[in-house]
Amino acid sequence: MGTSMTESFDDFEQMWRDLAPLGRSAMSGGYFRQPYSPVESELRSWFTAQCQARGLELEADGNGNLVAWWRPAGSVESTDGVLIGSHLDSVLDGGAYDGPLGVVSSLAAIDLLRARGTMPNRPIVVGAFAEEEGSRFGLACLGSRLATGVISPEDAGALGDRDGVRLGDAMVAAGVEPELGRAAWVDRIGCFVELHVEQGRDLVDRDASIGLATGIWPHGRYRFDFTGAANHAGTTRMEDRSDPMTTFARTALAAGEAASRSGQRATFGRLDVAPNGTNAIPSRVTAWLDARCESDAQQVRLLAEIERLAREHATSDGTRLEVTAESVSGEVAFDPALTERLRSGLTDRFGDVPVIATAAGHDAGILASAGVPTAMMFVRNPTGVSHSPEEHAEMDDCLSGVEALADALDILVS
Amino acid sequence: MGTSMTESFDDFEQMWRDLAPLGRSAMSGGYFRQPYSPVESELRSWFTAQCQARGLELEADGNGNLVAWWRPAGSVESTDGVLIGSHLDSVLDGGAYDGPLGVVSSLAAIDLLRARGTMPNRPIVVGAFAEEEGSRFGLACLGSRLATGVISPEDAGALGDRDGVRLGDAMVAAGVEPELGRAAWVDRIGCFVELHVEQGRDLVDRDASIGLATGIWPHGRYRFDFTGAANHAGTTRMEDRSDPMTTFARTALAAGEAASRSGQRATFGRLDVAPNGTNAIPSRVTAWLDARCESDAQQVRLLAEIERLAREHATSDGTRLEVTAESVSGEVAFDPALTERLRSGLTDRFGDVPVIATAAGHDAGILASAGVPTAMMFVRNPTGVSHSPEEHAEMDDCLSGVEALADALDILVS
Repeated sequence: MGTSMTESFDDFEQMWRDLAPLGRSAMSGGYFRQPYSPVESELRSWFTAQCQARGLELEADGNGNLVAWWRPAGSVESTDGVLIGSHLDSVLDGGAYDGPLGVVSSLAAIDLLRARGTMPNRPIVVGAFAEEEGSRFGLACLGSRLATGVISPEDAGALGDRDGVRLGDAMVAAGVEPELGRAAWVDRIGCFVELHVEQGRDLVDRDASIGLATGIWPHGRYRFDFTGAANHAGTTRMEDRSDPMTTFARTALAAGEAASRSGQRATFGRLDVAPNGTNAIPSRVTAWLDARCESDAQQVRLLAEIERLAREHATSDGTRLEVTAESVSGEVAFDPALTERLRSGLTDRFGDVPVIATAAGHDAGILASAGVPTAMMFVRNPTGVSHSPEEHAEMDDCLSGVEALADALDILVS
Repeated sequence: MGTSMTESFDDFEQMWRDLAPLGRSAMSGGYFRQPYSPVESELRSWFTAQCQARGLELEADGNGNLVAWWRPAGSVESTDGVLIGSHLDSVLDGGAYDGPLGVVSSLAAIDLLRARGTMPNRPIVVGAFAEEEGSRFGLACLGSRLATGVISPEDAGALGDRDGVRLGDAMVAAGVEPELGRAAWVDRIGCFVELHVEQGRDLVDRDASIGLATGIWPHGRYRFDFTGAANHAGTTRMEDRSDPMTTFARTALAAGEAASRSGQRATFGRLDVAPNGTNAIPSRVTAWLDARCESDAQQVRLLAEIERLAREHATSDGTRLEVTAESVSGEVAFDPALTERLRSGLTDRFGDVPVIATAAGHDAGILASAGVPTAMMFVRNPTGVSHSPEEHAEMDDCLSGVEALADALDILVS
């Protein structure tokens, strides 16, 4: 591995070249990296090899997470490890940077610290969390929720994917031994700094290559099951129908308008229609609402408003509605003291580092909620686009991220 | 097989018991009988066995259709066969009667004619058409279209199912030798009488167990591809989105309103969303419109109106729209002389037999368009529901249908 700054950056670019083809769709250019899929096994192998090449001590908890330790020479077991890292999984047809940027930058930051000759006085730990996106089992940050005990092993074990495969079975099929539940390694962590590509245009607007985060908006996923009466699309008069697609359409528009009015976010991006035949009025439309707001109070208000309108529409359409909260994460504030320590420490190299809010969920939010002092660092996203094949970050900004993360570690472990 | 009327009816009920479990979903109670699936192979075997048991001469054309001949004793090859029958496939999660009622009633009508001692002076032919519903390859009445030459073998061969399997490959996989194109047996048919469960409540309103049809409304299936820009559901401000789900929702509501205003039918019952992830604004929503109108002119007007509104919405949402007509069938009028001959002949037993229109497509419509004198006979549907597990017909009405079909054959072959 690199022993000079230039070599570290060469290794950084090589890691990107290694990862580029894994799970990439030739058609869209986007990534399909669902947890416990063959491609995610390749990503885990790649991470394992990278950690071994750096002499990091790899630990797999039974929740699918990997954590790799760089312990100070002669150190005994300590409880103040500095966790860095992020996740390797992607949304369906996602970008290259969401997740992997944090993992790759963490490995590169270790290379850079070593090139600088830094000898850490506390452990540095690189983590790769499992199922951060919730793209397979529907619950975002599943790995970090399990490791911190935010979700019980029973609740997690009951989760199934779209084909009905349970979490534990999926893990076994991927060669990962499941032992769900709170992980011992979490108790040996003193703080967490997660680096991530920004998923908006705040840093572009502020002309800054990197930034820090104040916190994460509250976020919820709610399943709306609209049921009506299947019938023949040709022979059933419009006035005789109870068509759940109509109620869904009204609800989707109402949700968008309610979110727009209040400056919040509401998205119906996933649908399941039964029987999904061209010439049949559907019997059921299941739609997943992703809602995010500036505060917990606004989140409650927005969901109540959308649900109220949906029920009104269901009544007038003669359909039925059931709403299930699949995951709800409250407002998260990152550790103000840690964030300020990093911000002021980064000023020398980066000038005034913006501290911004985000509406995206992250493992950092879970660890913060679980009481681990946590900060987040963002790398500029020139278009703001994410969860899309179009997601992009400039290499120069990514290298700034590596330097900023190395500086942060220098501040925390020196 | 039955030699008295009572035995014929026993056989009729036994046929229903044979068919009841095939392709039935234990969860919904509906039927999944897609063409060239394992369950459809069972249905074909069942039909073959029933024909053999009745000494009918079975012929399989290369289009997936089965036709079984009862030739008059000592008859030479004639061109005036009386075709009866219908189809065995179902929509996804459909009812038990749509299709099979016509096939089962045809076999039972032959039993009844034989019990009556009728000796036909022209061939009686029982047909089971393939892929009437278009549930797999998207084109309704595919088997009858191919047999009559309404669709070219090249166009049909290019059709693929949702998994991209081509028609010919699906046939081979099901053990059906494909030889797509106009079938010789069609030239040996003099007329067609298709019996079908009604898919509306006209006969209920008229208090009649059976009816005849004037014709079929024009019918079209149009694929609407809405494309936008995938992005992060949390971080993308509502005003920065080009969300194709929004345009679809507006279009679905506009289509329903346009159809309601003019007394026509418009249904979006099938959707495909990409990438279909909870936390991603979709990049694409594909929606299939099923539209049916009283006349060809109204069909053209309705589609133009829906497309115009959809394009307006796409423009205001910053999305794009492509509309593809996947199948369009013009207005069909059944043979007035044949229909009147049956109507007046059925009066003795059934009193005043209503002659009603239908908005459902049928193989009868294809054969009529291809120049075969055609009539349709409906059996009362107590709820009007069809294309649904809830579809139902009373056994007494079904037995009336068998008698009416036998009477019709008596009229035509005596």
